[in-house]
Amino acid sequence: MRHLLAVGDLGRDGIEEVLRLTESFVEVGERKIPKVPALRGRTVVTLFFEESTRTRLSFETAARRLSADTMSFSVATSSVKKGESLRDTVRTIEAMGVDAMVVRHRSAGVPAQVASWVDAAVVNGGDGWHEHPTQALLDCYSVRERRGSLEGLRVAIVGDVKHSRVARSDVAAFSALGAEVTLVAPPTLLPPDLTGWPVTASSDLSGTLVRSDVVIVLRLQRERQEQGLLPSLREYRGRYGLTRERAALLPDDALVLHPGPMNRGVEIDAEVADGPRSLVLRQVTNGVAVRMAVLFLLLGAGAGLGEAAPAILGGAAPRA
Amino acid sequence: MRHLLAVGDLGRDGIEEVLRLTESFVEVGERKIPKVPALRGRTVVTLFFEESTRTRLSFETAARRLSADTMSFSVATSSVKKGESLRDTVRTIEAMGVDAMVVRHRSAGVPAQVASWVDAAVVNGGDGWHEHPTQALLDCYSVRERRGSLEGLRVAIVGDVKHSRVARSDVAAFSALGAEVTLVAPPTLLPPDLTGWPVTASSDLSGTLVRSDVVIVLRLQRERQEQGLLPSLREYRGRYGLTRERAALLPDDALVLHPGPMNRGVEIDAEVADGPRSLVLRQVTNGVAVRMAVLFLLLGAGAGLGEAAPAILGGAAPRA
Amino acid sequence: MRHLLAVGDLGRDGIEEVLRLTESFVEVGERKIPKVPALRGRTVVTLFFEESTRTRLSFETAARRLSADTMSFSVATSSVKKGESLRDTVRTIEAMGVDAMVVRHRSAGVPAQVASWVDAAVVNGGDGWHEHPTQALLDCYSVRERRGSLEGLRVAIVGDVKHSRVARSDVAAFSALGAEVTLVAPPTLLPPDLTGWPVTASSDLSGTLVRSDVVIVLRLQRERQEQGLLPSLREYRGRYGLTRERAALLPDDALVLHPGPMNRGVEIDAEVADGPRSLVLRQVTNGVAVRMAVLFLLLGAGAGLGEAAPAILGGAAPRA
Repeated sequence: MRHLLAVGDLGRDGIEEVLRLTESFVEVGERKIPKVPALRGRTVVTLFFEESTRTRLSFETAARRLSADTMSFSVATSSVKKGESLRDTVRTIEAMGVDAMVVRHRSAGVPAQVASWVDAAVVNGGDGWHEHPTQALLDCYSVRERRGSLEGLRVAIVGDVKHSRVARSDVAAFSALGAEVTLVAPPTLLPPDLTGWPVTASSDLSGTLVRSDVVIVLRLQRERQEQGLLPSLREYRGRYGLTRERAALLPDDALVLHPGPMNRGVEIDAEVADGPRSLVLRQVTNGVAVRMAVLFLLLGAGAGLGEAAPAILGGAAPRA
Repeated sequence: MRHLLAVGDLGRDGIEEVLRLTESFVEVGERKIPKVPALRGRTVVTLFFEESTRTRLSFETAARRLSADTMSFSVATSSVKKGESLRDTVRTIEAMGVDAMVVRHRSAGVPAQVASWVDAAVVNGGDGWHEHPTQALLDCYSVRERRGSLEGLRVAIVGDVKHSRVARSDVAAFSALGAEVTLVAPPTLLPPDLTGWPVTASSDLSGTLVRSDVVIVLRLQRERQEQGLLPSLREYRGRYGLTRERAALLPDDALVLHPGPMNRGVEIDAEVADGPRSLVLRQVTNGVAVRMAVLFLLLGAGAGLGEAAPAILGGAAPRA
Repeated sequence: MRHLLAVGDLGRDGIEEVLRLTESFVEVGERKIPKVPALRGRTVVTLFFEESTRTRLSFETAARRLSADTMSFSVATSSVKKGESLRDTVRTIEAMGVDAMVVRHRSAGVPAQVASWVDAAVVNGGDGWHEHPTQALLDCYSVRERRGSLEGLRVAIVGDVKHSRVARSDVAAFSALGAEVTLVAPPTLLPPDLTGWPVTASSDLSGTLVRSDVVIVLRLQRERQEQGLLPSLREYRGRYGLTRERAALLPDDALVLHPGPMNRGVEIDAEVADGPRSLVLRQVTNGVAVRMAVLFLLLGAGAGLGEAAPAILGGAAPRA
C-alpha cells in the first residue's frame, strides 16, 4: 500500500490489518507517555485546501505520537492564492523533504491527483463528496471495539447521503467487513442512482431503527436548506432527526455514531448525543489511533507488519 | 489545584508556591538549553477564541520548555464557525488526548464552563473583563524579583480598570501578598461599584504617583473613545497617561509595569516605557517562567511540589 | 557574522563558507533521519509580515532539522493590528527567549531595523524590493552543484528586475563568485539607474540566451499589468517569457532556475519548467540546506566552523 485514497484500496484484508494495528495504538494512547519512536525523522504534512481543524489536529497528533515531524499547510495562507498550480504547490512542498501528505480538498479526486504527482505517501483526508477513508476506519474500529465483529450487523446511515464522503466510505468499509447497510435519507438527499452500492435504501427511519445495531447519523449542512433541498431544519428533524423519542426505538445494545461536528437539535438530539449508546467521543479518541495505524503502514518499516509492529510498539521509546 | 481560573483559586499560599517555582524556571530559562523533561508526553492545547499572539506564544513556549507537546486551536479556523457548540468543541479536542487547555474568550466565565466539561486541567488565559490570572502572577513575580517582597508596597493601577481583566487579577494577587492597591481611572472607566474590592480609588494621578512603589499602566483600547467613554486620546493622555513629566514624580526606586501591547504616546510615554524603571520586557520573560510553573503545578508529578521540583529541575534533561 | 541582512554582508569568503556548509547539510537531508543536534535548545522564530508559506516552511524545516524549536508569528493574527509598534512587537517576542528571527516584510530595510533593536540573530527572509539573500545563496549552490564553479559562467536574469529582491541578491551573489550577469527586462521593469550594478543590461532575450550558461527567470506579479507597466501577459510572454521555442536557443548544458511560485505560461512554459535543464525543485530542496547552513553559522558553536562542523555533523544525533 503506497497511498490511502479510498476504502477500496485496502480490501477486507487491508481493513482488518489497519484495525488490528489500531488496537495497539489505542493501547499506546493510554500510556503515561503516549508516544512511540516508529516514524522518527519522518515528516508528515497536512495539506488542507478546505479547513477542518478537528481532522487536521487528529492527523497531526497521530504523526507526533509516532515521533514524526509535522508541517501544516492551509490554503488561506498559501501560494495557491498567488496563482500557482496545485501540482507545483504539492511538488514544492514535497521537495522540502516530506514523507507523507494528508490532503483534504473540496473536489473529489484531488488526493488521487496529488498521489500521481509525488513520491510521498498520500492519505485522503476527505475529498468532495467522494471519500473520507480514515473516518470509515475509525467508525468500524469503534463499533468493533464494542461488538467484537461487524459480521452480520445491521447498520443504518441516516441523513444527507448524497453529499457525504463519510457515507460513501462507511458503506464501503462496513460492507467489506460483513455488515448490512441501510441508507435512510430524504429523496432529495439520496444519490439518484444506487446501482452497485451494496445497500438497501429506505425512507422509513423508525422502521429501520427498530432493527438496527448501529446508527451513523450524518451531519446536515445548513446550506442544504438554502439550496432548496429541504423544507426546513425543523421538518428535517421531525422526519430524519435521531430524536430522543426515535432513539428509544433502537435495540438496547445499539450504538450511535456521528462524525462531528454535530448540529444538536437538528440531526441528533442532545440526549442521544450524550447518551450511553453514543460513541461520539470514543470515535474521536479512536480516530487518532486509526491515523497512527495508517501512517505507520504507509511509512513504517518496509518489513511486514507482523514482524515490525511488536518490535516497534514494544520498544515504547523512553525518550521518543 | 486542578484548574487555574482566577487568582482567588490559589490563595496566598498558592500564589507563594507559584512564585517560588517560577524562580526555578527563570533559572532554567537562562540555561544554554532552557528545557526540562518535566511534562514529556503531555499535551497542552491553546484554545483562543479571542486572538492574542503574545499570550499564546508565551504559553506554548512554556509548554515546550517543559517538554510537553502543544496544539494550537484558534476560532478563526474552527468548527465553531460550523455551528458546533462550545461544549462539543472542547470535548472533541480533549478526546484527542489533551492534558491541559489554556482558554481565552471574550466572555467572562468561559474557562470555568470549560473546566466543568472536561477532565483536562484548564488555565484561564483571559476571559472578558473577568480575570487573567497568569498576568497577575507574572506582575507579582516581576515586582518581587526587584523588591524582595510585596508586603506593604503601594501599587497604583492606572487606566481602564472597568474593562480590564488584568486589573481584576492584579488587585486580587497584589492584595493577597500584602500590597496596598490604589486604582486611578476616569469615572467612566472605573467599575460603578467597588464594594468588596480591597482597594482605594482616586482620580488624582499625580498625588498617587508621589507615594507609589509600583505603577501598573493598563492598555487603553482605542474603541473606548468610539464608545463615548473618553473625550479624546489626547485628553486621556493629558489626565491619565504616564507621561515623562508625571513619571518624574515617582520615588526613585519605583517600578513601572504594562501588560502590553502598549499604545506609546497614549497611556504611556516612550521614554517611560523604555526607561530604567520599566519592567515591561522583564514581564514578558518572566511570563514564560510563570506559565511553566502553573502548567507544572497542574500537570506535574502527583507528589507534593516540595519533593518533585528539585528532582525534576535538577535533572536538566540532557536530551529533553 | 551576527545577522544575514544582505548578500554583501557575507563577502566572497562568507558565501563560499555558506556553500561549503550547505553541502554537508544536503548530505544530512538525504539521511534516513535527516536531523542533527546542532541547535538543540535554541529557538528560531519566523516573523512574516508578508505571507510566504513556502519560505516560512523552508526556514522552519531547516530549524527543526538542526533540532531547534520554532515559533511562527504572522501579522494576520498579531498585536501589530492592535496598534503596537514594530519595535515593541519584536522586542516582546525576543523577550520570550528567541535566538534567531527570520523577518519578511514588504518594506525594504525592516530586517536591518529589527537587527538594530534585538540581540537575537536576524535573517532577512525578503524585504520589499531590496534583498532575499538566502534565495541567492540557494541559487548559487544549485548551479555550483551542477557546474562545479560559478567562475566565468554567464548568467541571465530575466523579467521584472525592478521590483525583484531576488534579482538584487542574485546579482550580488553570482557576481561575487565570478559569474557575469546580464539582465533582460522590459524597459518599464528595469531599474532606472544601474550605476554600480556589476551587470550588463539587454532587451534582446534570444541573443542573450544563445550565450548563457544559466537563466534565472523571475516571477511576474500579475499586478504589474494593472499598474500599466505591461501591455498584457500575452505580450510579455511573447517578448520576455522563457517559452519552449526560446529555451531551445540555450546551450545544451545550460540551467534554468525560477524562485517560485511560477506562473506557467507567462514567464516560463510548462515544458521548460519541467524539462531536464530545470533546477526548480532542486532549488527547493537545496533551500532547506542553505537555511540550515545560515542558521548554523549564526547560532552554532562559537568555535570556528572549520572545527565545529565535522564534530557536529558527524555526530548525527541518534535521538535528535
